[in-house]
Amino acid sequence: MPRLFLRIFFDGLMLGPGKIELLMRIRARGSIAAAGREMGMSYRRAWSLVEEMNAAFVAPVVTSTRGGAGGGGARVTATGEAVISHYRAIYMTALSHGAQDIAALEGMLRPADANTDPD
Amino acid sequence: MPRLFLRIFFDGLMLGPGKIELLMRIRARGSIAAAGREMGMSYRRAWSLVEEMNAAFVAPVVTSTRGGAGGGGARVTATGEAVISHYRAIYMTALSHGAQDIAALEGMLRPADANTDPD
Repeated sequence: MPRLFLRIFFDGLMLGPGKIELLMRIRARGSIAAAGREMGMSYRRAWSLVEEMNAAFVAPVVTSTRGGAGGGGARVTATGEAVISHYRAIYMTALSHGAQDIAALEGMLRPADANTDPD
Repeated sequence: MPRLFLRIFFDGLMLGPGKIELLMRIRARGSIAAAGREMGMSYRRAWSLVEEMNAAFVAPVVTSTRGGAGGGGARVTATGEAVISHYRAIYMTALSHGAQDIAALEGMLRPADANTDPD
């Protein structure tokens, strides 16, 4: 099955695979820094994406405590969970309802090794 | 309605809005150069995208005559038309079948002017 790159342009926010992956990794790691690091992102960059989302939505998507004994921690809120699941639903819908057209395009493609001439 | 950016990753080809727009403009203008120019693309860049698609699909998506009295011309083939229409079908499917989730995300966003404090 081909992969999709899907970004949604809202008034005031672009929501795509990078922000969604960041949210999912924050949920898994409990840390914005660790999540960003796993994606090859600077701490500053990861923070700025979180702040952008927190400002765009009516409620924050991530809450965090900075520093402290445990080095601070981050938690994906109910709003953040809803953002993840709605985005993923749209993605899966495009793949499943678009499957016939995707397969048609795939069927028109030259097989991947067709450029390898026999000797 | 929010806009989507949708790119499909096939084995050997990425198909997204740039290539589809180029095909549609070639169809409208009958010229790869004119189509590319409308998109702020160099002739070389427009040609290379067309050649990439022509090589990837079993049949070419664009046929062209280079130079000559009329300065050459280009035509979108039946394969090219099918590529345009399948891509657009996938895009429209994501928008229409994803409408409920898109609306849910939109409903969670702060109104665009919410950052303007009343004085």
